[in-house]
Amino acid sequence: MAHALAIDIGGTKLSWSLIDRSYKIISHEQTKTPKKIDALIKELDKIIRAAVNSVDDLDGVGIGVAGLVDFNLGTVVAAPNLPLVGARLALRITDRFDLKCSMDNDASLAILGELFCGAGRGLTNFFGLTVGTGIGGGIILNKKLYHGEQGGAAEFGHIVVDAGGFQCTCGHLGCLETRASGTAIDRAAKKMVEAKPTSALARRAQDAPKGITGPMVFEAAREGDQDALAILADIGRWLGIGIGSLINVLDPELVVIGGGAASAIELVHDVVREEMAKTVINPRSKQIPTAISTLANRAGLLGAAALVFEF
Amino acid sequence: MAHALAIDIGGTKLSWSLIDRSYKIISHEQTKTPKKIDALIKELDKIIRAAVNSVDDLDGVGIGVAGLVDFNLGTVVAAPNLPLVGARLALRITDRFDLKCSMDNDASLAILGELFCGAGRGLTNFFGLTVGTGIGGGIILNKKLYHGEQGGAAEFGHIVVDAGGFQCTCGHLGCLETRASGTAIDRAAKKMVEAKPTSALARRAQDAPKGITGPMVFEAAREGDQDALAILADIGRWLGIGIGSLINVLDPELVVIGGGAASAIELVHDVVREEMAKTVINPRSKQIPTAISTLANRAGLLGAAALVFEF
Repeated sequence: MAHALAIDIGGTKLSWSLIDRSYKIISHEQTKTPKKIDALIKELDKIIRAAVNSVDDLDGVGIGVAGLVDFNLGTVVAAPNLPLVGARLALRITDRFDLKCSMDNDASLAILGELFCGAGRGLTNFFGLTVGTGIGGGIILNKKLYHGEQGGAAEFGHIVVDAGGFQCTCGHLGCLETRASGTAIDRAAKKMVEAKPTSALARRAQDAPKGITGPMVFEAAREGDQDALAILADIGRWLGIGIGSLINVLDPELVVIGGGAASAIELVHDVVREEMAKTVINPRSKQIPTAISTLANRAGLLGAAALVFEF
Repeated sequence: MAHALAIDIGGTKLSWSLIDRSYKIISHEQTKTPKKIDALIKELDKIIRAAVNSVDDLDGVGIGVAGLVDFNLGTVVAAPNLPLVGARLALRITDRFDLKCSMDNDASLAILGELFCGAGRGLTNFFGLTVGTGIGGGIILNKKLYHGEQGGAAEFGHIVVDAGGFQCTCGHLGCLETRASGTAIDRAAKKMVEAKPTSALARRAQDAPKGITGPMVFEAAREGDQDALAILADIGRWLGIGIGSLINVLDPELVVIGGGAASAIELVHDVVREEMAKTVINPRSKQIPTAISTLANRAGLLGAAALVFEF
């Protein structure tokens, strides 16, 4: 059976999997992302060489990058945490290994993973958000990723919902990412712990070296802690405003919510939907289904494999 | 030469044109929109009958409606100011007159007009906003209008940019329409006149029965009045935030700004672009061109004719 090598180049973590044509993940490995481009390219060469040697029928390499990607050229346009801007990475791999190589934004690939292996199977037009430290996204139109003219589409973390509000990592004020991401959860949790220093949530964080963090909030919320649930409900409201706004632009068949915070957002899914319905203008579109991804961190690698198998 | 009958059903005004295959407007008439559905249908019948009698080669009827339209069924889903919801208007016309009849949202048709007769000629993927009393929009993908699954796409007036802000006509808070439309100009102008009762702008409005209005602001701004220009600059900033957010979703070849306020916005086009560039995340997409429509109120009728000729 044919195989794809799927690689995810994150800001801190480099991970890769061999995936077969039925989208079964055969192997999974990870290491720290090298900080310099030469070291990163050497590491990628090692990974690809090992994959070529381990299966007879490697169809190609799909790469997800935490940054803005020129899908057609296989280059990185902008990536705050990666030394890759301008490198013709995909072309170099094809040239060196005689293998098809495609590259795309990691969040977009996670949504492509949903199309072939997740909540989007069988659908034609949908979009998804990946909610983690930041917010990424992907748009599926006619069963393909829609990139826009310059690869700048589906940057859902940077629609402005709260103009003049908190400063985003992008420098602008009030992006959705400042209100509905892991960063927003951290900020709200710190404020909550300061305001209620004797609460269960504060006690949970008191021995932690960095104080309260998102995962502590998730855990507390899952155990029914009201303060933690209130933090997530606020995140859910903002996410609902963002998703509702996006529905007013794209009116899809489905909205998928993925990323590291997806399972936490599941706890406030009703809040997300309530605010989304308030924001959506078309009465028919208020009922558009929203799905919480069940692919977890496999979504991006499965999407990278789909780049190899399906396009 | 083939002709199309283009009809625009607005909340207060019903207008229509015969348009030939080269998109030349042969005739233009208008009347008040009848408030009851029977009267409106009777008026439409009269208009179509007259068109059938006046040219030998009427290819069909294209209708724009100020409301949410089910493009496929030719029905109106929601229209706050029109008695048309649920009526199978297009089907009825085809049945009665043996003529092709297509119907779409008026703002979407204005952007379709741009594709065939305006700033979007020759382009494949772009979007436009119509800024008037409210804000409408249209998305062109692959040289066609993109409607979304339920006809709810391109409702650009209702992306939330200022959550918790002013209440919109849709009931929600902080929609783009509350900040960057004619309604927003009226609100800002009233506030300005109250704050500066001896200003030139206030004097301009003192004998007007309804006080200061948008057209007075436009006129004053064109004559260089600093207060009027400050009002428009604020509208321009919000419009730039909205357009920048939409570019982060759609990353088009071009953004067209049309509608009744387009020529006023032209005075602050640089402000719009500056704020847009701040909001756009992809460095390449900050340079996406923005065009002020020159089709004025012909855009929607030309788009309605395009429905007949091109699809």
